[in-house]
Amino acid sequence: MKTYTVAILGATGAVGREMLNILEERQFPVENLIPLASGRSAGQAIAFRGETLRVEEAQPDAFRGVDLVLGAADNDTALAMAPAILDAGALFVDNSSAFRMDPTVPLVVPEVNGNDAFQNRGIVANPNCSTIIAVTAIAALNRLSPVRSMIASTYQAVSGAGVAGIAELEAQVKALSTGEKPVCQAFPYQIAYNLIPQIGQEVNQGYTSEEMKMQNEGRRILHLPELTVSCTCVRVPVIRSHSISLNLTFDRAISPEEARQAISTAPGCRLADDLAAGVYPMPLAASNQDLVYVGRIRPDLTNPKGLALWCCGDQIRKGAATNAVQIAQLLCPAE
Amino acid sequence: MKTYTVAILGATGAVGREMLNILEERQFPVENLIPLASGRSAGQAIAFRGETLRVEEAQPDAFRGVDLVLGAADNDTALAMAPAILDAGALFVDNSSAFRMDPTVPLVVPEVNGNDAFQNRGIVANPNCSTIIAVTAIAALNRLSPVRSMIASTYQAVSGAGVAGIAELEAQVKALSTGEKPVCQAFPYQIAYNLIPQIGQEVNQGYTSEEMKMQNEGRRILHLPELTVSCTCVRVPVIRSHSISLNLTFDRAISPEEARQAISTAPGCRLADDLAAGVYPMPLAASNQDLVYVGRIRPDLTNPKGLALWCCGDQIRKGAATNAVQIAQLLCPAE
Repeated sequence: MKTYTVAILGATGAVGREMLNILEERQFPVENLIPLASGRSAGQAIAFRGETLRVEEAQPDAFRGVDLVLGAADNDTALAMAPAILDAGALFVDNSSAFRMDPTVPLVVPEVNGNDAFQNRGIVANPNCSTIIAVTAIAALNRLSPVRSMIASTYQAVSGAGVAGIAELEAQVKALSTGEKPVCQAFPYQIAYNLIPQIGQEVNQGYTSEEMKMQNEGRRILHLPELTVSCTCVRVPVIRSHSISLNLTFDRAISPEEARQAISTAPGCRLADDLAAGVYPMPLAASNQDLVYVGRIRPDLTNPKGLALWCCGDQIRKGAATNAVQIAQLLCPAE
Repeated sequence: MKTYTVAILGATGAVGREMLNILEERQFPVENLIPLASGRSAGQAIAFRGETLRVEEAQPDAFRGVDLVLGAADNDTALAMAPAILDAGALFVDNSSAFRMDPTVPLVVPEVNGNDAFQNRGIVANPNCSTIIAVTAIAALNRLSPVRSMIASTYQAVSGAGVAGIAELEAQVKALSTGEKPVCQAFPYQIAYNLIPQIGQEVNQGYTSEEMKMQNEGRRILHLPELTVSCTCVRVPVIRSHSISLNLTFDRAISPEEARQAISTAPGCRLADDLAAGVYPMPLAASNQDLVYVGRIRPDLTNPKGLALWCCGDQIRKGAATNAVQIAQLLCPAE
C-alpha cells in the first residue's frame, strides 16, 4: 500500500478542520499529517486519528518531503506558498480561488470532470462552493443535453465566511434574545433574521465576484465555453448548507421524469423529489454528509426547453473539503 | 367629511391587527370600527385610536350598517361571509385568495392597476403577498416595455404563516439554544437555521399553489394575459419581509440605467441600488414600512432583453394590510 505525507494549509479554519475529518473518514492513506496555519495559530493542538498534532507555521520550508498539500487558506497564502509546494514536488489541491481561472490548472469536481485532474502540472483547483453544488446537481442533465444557460439564485449558509461566520450568526441570535445590539464583523450587516444579497465585490456589470464564479467556473467544469449564467448570491441565516434555485435551458427539451431518472443514478447526488409527500432538499437534511440533494424538478413554465430545480449541499464538505479530498483520492491512490 | 363604519374580518391575526394600525396611521375616516373574529377570539380586547374595543364573533348579521369590510380571514370564512357583506351593501376588500381569480372581482395593487378597483361589484381582492411585492417592484419597468416572462425565486418570511409562524421561529431558536427539540406546528419542518422549499400544495406540474399565484395573479394585475412565470417559493428564517430574486424578459432591451431611472420615481418603490456602497434591499430595512425596496438591477447575462433584480417588502404591510387599506382609500374617499 502506498502512503503519503499530507500537509493541510490553513488547518485551523472551518474547511481545514473538515479536511482532517474527511481524510480520516475516507481512510486516505496518510503516512504523516502536517497541519499548517498562520503564525498566529501555530502551536494549537489538532486531533487526527486519535493523535494530537501541533499546528506549524506555514512557511516555504514547511513543504520539504510533503507529497500532497490540501489548501484551505486564502488566495494570498495560496499564491505565496505555491512555488515552494511545487519545488518540493508535492501535489497542491487548492481551495482558494487563486488558480481557478488559470488555463494550465484543472478545475475539478470528480463526479463531473474527474479526468481533467490528470492534466495537472502540480496544482489542481477546487471550485467555488456554490458552483460545486450546482454542477454536481446538473452534470447528469448536461449529459442528456448540453446546458445553454442557467439562472441561479443562491441561499448561502454563514459557514461560507468560515468559523467566524458561524460564530457571528450564533452570537447575534443570542444578543437579540436578550435585547442586546448584535455585533457585525464577519458580515457587513446583521445576518440573524435577515438576508444579505451581496457575496464578494462587484466585478462585472453589477454582478459580484461570487456571482460570476457560477458562470466562469461552471464553463470550465462542464466543458461548456459558451454557457451563460445570471446568478444572484444571497447570504441566509443557515449554518452550513448552501441551497440553489436553478432554471436551466437545454439544447433540447428534457422532461422532469427523464431528469429525475438521470439524477437518481448520478454520482454524488441524492434525488429528493416528492412534493406531495413533503420530500425535497433542505439545508438541515443536507448538512454533515457529502451528497448534493436535488428536488423540486419541474418544467420551466417560461421556456419549453427549460427545467426548474432546487438543490442543497453541505458547503464545508462537498462544497469544499470533501471535493478537495476526492481530487486527492483520484491522484494519490492507495495502491 | 365623509366617514365610514369599518369591520375587520379576522381582527386578531397578524394581518388584521396591522390593518387596525394602518387605518389609524393613514387617518382613514373611520366612524365606527368593528373587530370581528372567530367565536374562539370573541371578547378579546383590541386597541384602536386610544380606545379599547371588544372583538365580536364574525356572523352574517354582524355586517348590518357596515360600509367597508377589510377581510383578513381564511378562504372559507371569506366565502361564508361574502353574501351577508354584499347584502348589507358594504364594500368587501378581501385578503384571502377566495375571489382572486374570479373575473368579476378586480384584483388590485393601487400603484399598478388602481383603476381596476372601480369596476368592482362589491368585492375587491387583495393579491398574494409575494405577488404584490414583485408587481410593485416591476410595474414601472412593465410600462417601459411589457414583461414577457419572469423567473422568480422567493425568500419568504415566517409572518406569511401569521402570528403562529413568527412565534414558531422564535420558539425554535430558543429551544435550540438550550438543547431542546424544536416543535414544528406552523411549518412542516424546523424553520430556524433551515429553508423549506414548499409553500402551499402542488397544483400544476410540480408547482405549488403559492408559486402559481405569481403567474396567475401577475397576469391579472399587470394586464398581461400571456405572461409566463416560473416561480420557486421558499420559506426562510426571517420575521416579516419577503424578498424576491427576479429575472425578467421584456419585449425590448431595457438598460439597467433606464430601469433605475424608472424605479426611482415609481409609486410605492424605493430604489436601493449601489452595490459598491453596500446599498441593496434587505428584509430588516424593508420591515415596518410600506415601500418595496428594489436593487441589484443588472443585465441578465443569459438574455439580451433581460434584467435581473432583487426586491424586498414588508409582507404584513404592503404584502397584505397596507395594500388592502390603500384599495379602501381609493373607493372610500374622505371627501
